[in-house]
Amino acid sequence: MTKDDEAFHFLFNPRSVAVVGASENPLKMGHQCLLSLRESGSHRSIYPIHPRLKEILGIPAYPGLQYVPGEVDLAILAVPASETIFALKACQEKGVRGAIIITAGFREIEKPSGELLQKEMARIANQGRIKIIGPNTFGLVNVHAQLNASFTPVFSRLKPGSISVIGQSGGVSHLVAYQALNEGVGLSKVVGIGNRCNVDFADLLPFLEKDSETKCVILFIEGQDDPRGLITAVKKFASRKPIIAMKAGRYAESSKAARSHTGSLAGRYEIYEASLKQAGALVVQDPGELLDVAKILTMLRPPPGRNVAVMSFQAGPGILLTDAVVEHGLRMAVFSPATQEKLDKLLPPLTIRTNPVDIAFAQDEPVFEESLHIILQDENVDTLVIFLLHHPFMDLRRIVRPLLRQRMLSPKPILLGVNALQGSIAEEVAELERRGIPVYPLPDRAIRALKRLMQYGGSLRKG
Amino acid sequence: MTKDDEAFHFLFNPRSVAVVGASENPLKMGHQCLLSLRESGSHRSIYPIHPRLKEILGIPAYPGLQYVPGEVDLAILAVPASETIFALKACQEKGVRGAIIITAGFREIEKPSGELLQKEMARIANQGRIKIIGPNTFGLVNVHAQLNASFTPVFSRLKPGSISVIGQSGGVSHLVAYQALNEGVGLSKVVGIGNRCNVDFADLLPFLEKDSETKCVILFIEGQDDPRGLITAVKKFASRKPIIAMKAGRYAESSKAARSHTGSLAGRYEIYEASLKQAGALVVQDPGELLDVAKILTMLRPPPGRNVAVMSFQAGPGILLTDAVVEHGLRMAVFSPATQEKLDKLLPPLTIRTNPVDIAFAQDEPVFEESLHIILQDENVDTLVIFLLHHPFMDLRRIVRPLLRQRMLSPKPILLGVNALQGSIAEEVAELERRGIPVYPLPDRAIRALKRLMQYGGSLRKG
Repeated sequence: MTKDDEAFHFLFNPRSVAVVGASENPLKMGHQCLLSLRESGSHRSIYPIHPRLKEILGIPAYPGLQYVPGEVDLAILAVPASETIFALKACQEKGVRGAIIITAGFREIEKPSGELLQKEMARIANQGRIKIIGPNTFGLVNVHAQLNASFTPVFSRLKPGSISVIGQSGGVSHLVAYQALNEGVGLSKVVGIGNRCNVDFADLLPFLEKDSETKCVILFIEGQDDPRGLITAVKKFASRKPIIAMKAGRYAESSKAARSHTGSLAGRYEIYEASLKQAGALVVQDPGELLDVAKILTMLRPPPGRNVAVMSFQAGPGILLTDAVVEHGLRMAVFSPATQEKLDKLLPPLTIRTNPVDIAFAQDEPVFEESLHIILQDENVDTLVIFLLHHPFMDLRRIVRPLLRQRMLSPKPILLGVNALQGSIAEEVAELERRGIPVYPLPDRAIRALKRLMQYGGSLRKG
Repeated sequence: MTKDDEAFHFLFNPRSVAVVGASENPLKMGHQCLLSLRESGSHRSIYPIHPRLKEILGIPAYPGLQYVPGEVDLAILAVPASETIFALKACQEKGVRGAIIITAGFREIEKPSGELLQKEMARIANQGRIKIIGPNTFGLVNVHAQLNASFTPVFSRLKPGSISVIGQSGGVSHLVAYQALNEGVGLSKVVGIGNRCNVDFADLLPFLEKDSETKCVILFIEGQDDPRGLITAVKKFASRKPIIAMKAGRYAESSKAARSHTGSLAGRYEIYEASLKQAGALVVQDPGELLDVAKILTMLRPPPGRNVAVMSFQAGPGILLTDAVVEHGLRMAVFSPATQEKLDKLLPPLTIRTNPVDIAFAQDEPVFEESLHIILQDENVDTLVIFLLHHPFMDLRRIVRPLLRQRMLSPKPILLGVNALQGSIAEEVAELERRGIPVYPLPDRAIRALKRLMQYGGSLRKG
């Protein structure tokens, strides 16, 4: 283990955490951080630091880090900007391994004092070998370790998964994490790198590359001082695991704002995009796409070709899926004569039996399963996409077993689109996804994710 | 009232409804239709028709329509295809005003008998002046009248609103209605026209044009026998109320499927698109966009120009909004020097104070309200878009009052993007939308909807 690896290990797996600037006031960052820690796991020591209070949220408090009886692996700093240097020095004296500096008002502000303070902060941290996440961050979450070291208590409800997120924007990191919570997608680590005092994308990527709990990383980039360092790190990471990147500030109007927010040159969007792609990252432009793509990359291997078979339980969505397949540059598979003959025998003449296949009138499970089997066996088919509108007549529950059985019998990727009322099928979706069938709520989102999987595997360029 | 108007009036506002083919088996359409009717309102008579059973779901049943004691305004037919002609004749004899034929297996199937049966059905219906919705439909819903005459009981939970949906695909109509349920958007009427025996888009549009509960209509089109009739009806409707259209089957692969599903020529997509636009419809290609656009059109008047001010409580999403503004062809407003001076005085130098305006550090309500006021007064601003990530520190509840007050003081459209955990802010969103501020869950969706509003008002072409 390198020194950096060890430092990051403690940052993500601290045995004890202190909150400097803990507060009883729910509108203070230090209060929410304490709530997050308390709700995420009771297996580690939590030390609120407060000049006067004896306890906060029922947890014994200390007047300073030096009074904490045991070791402190991680300190979360939520004190006014003017007090951070003092607090960081106390961390150094206590032998703290890592720090999360929630406080804002440094490099990103207009006054030059912000930049100076941040430089001093970096100096002290480097001297004490302290890795700093932030300043100007919401914190970090390590779902597998049940560590929510952020000012957002609901992150304690995140499900463990294999997608990690590094965001330069707290807001966008929250967008992704809220989507994960709303759609039941598992995450591994979520890090808001904020002003990047001494930890940047390029520092975290080598750690996540070795992290067995991370299969895929999402980056949200605003601007970088050392874009080459970022690109080199992305290239190295991408040679081992998939990486999805989004860069904000695509136009003059937004790029100016990005620069002023991060205190870094935002840089020409086109150069970033080209370099990131060149380095092996998948570049997306819609924040809603980040998690969709990450999910498919952690669950499926790219198919060898771009021929897609579409099955639906309603003709209309089947036609929309077909539109989406063609629009995104994939191809509707042409079934072999043998497949077509079998389907024509199996399915009633009431439905569309070419590709797309409408199985609205073949609603008994054996016929559904047999259709699945026939289509998956066709060598002209690389991937199967199924769409179902969850309904008393087309209950997702009735097709879970046949789907999982056929999934076991074929190496071909199967994607499922299921439109349903919120929360009505969460369990079934979780089971399907655990067993390797990604589920998307809208036809277009499934096809868009599949396109990225093919892009990743190079199959879009093939026959 | 014309004869047609009267017939449609009874179809959407029946005093009594019979379900021919009612069943005790939950997997039968006739069972679900009965459930829907029972759950949507107890103020009208419901008559299950069943050859033997004395009651179904606790409702007294009759062996045939002729045994029903009172008048029957609407009959829902969920009998096998071979029995529909017989059932329709019984409707005619009973003096039924309108019929919904759920049964499939007519014109859309491969066998010529389907087409013949449907023609006979039309003949009988026209003779008896019965308007038929279907065959091959899920039915219809009139939310304001608490009528759920469909095979989907959850539609009884739809909120009343002013958006009506006419869909040629049951699946896509469900997509839109499920989205309305999930996002709390109100609907007026939802109609699945299915195979269009004697009621097509062109027949319903004049009725909805006069309907005071409908402000805006969504059409989902697969294929038409008489495209000119459709276009003429759209043109007439569009001269009075906004209309949003989506046509499936944009490519050869999907157009073939659409034709085989509906039994109609799908027609070249480009011709449909051009004619619909020419007739004054807004044409979209993403089913997820239909409701977003309808919502904004029912709530806001188009702004005179395309200059947008962006406020956000986090810099990252503000930058994404800016990207979206430019990408969609709108323009970031340049504040007047007076506005800029006021904002610079009001907001701390920690944030971006040009457009986009980041008010992360100005979290007290008076400062937020004052910023709103300053920006809305600027004559360089046509529309204001605000984004908030709902969070303990940026609680939507805290800005509802200031927002609504400023909304009262300015005629300029205000849109709100709020990302939140499912169900956490439903009440606040409902209140904001009742008072004329549409809310979208993602930055891009807000801007995309705004673009359509400007397209509708012609302001995209202006200054």
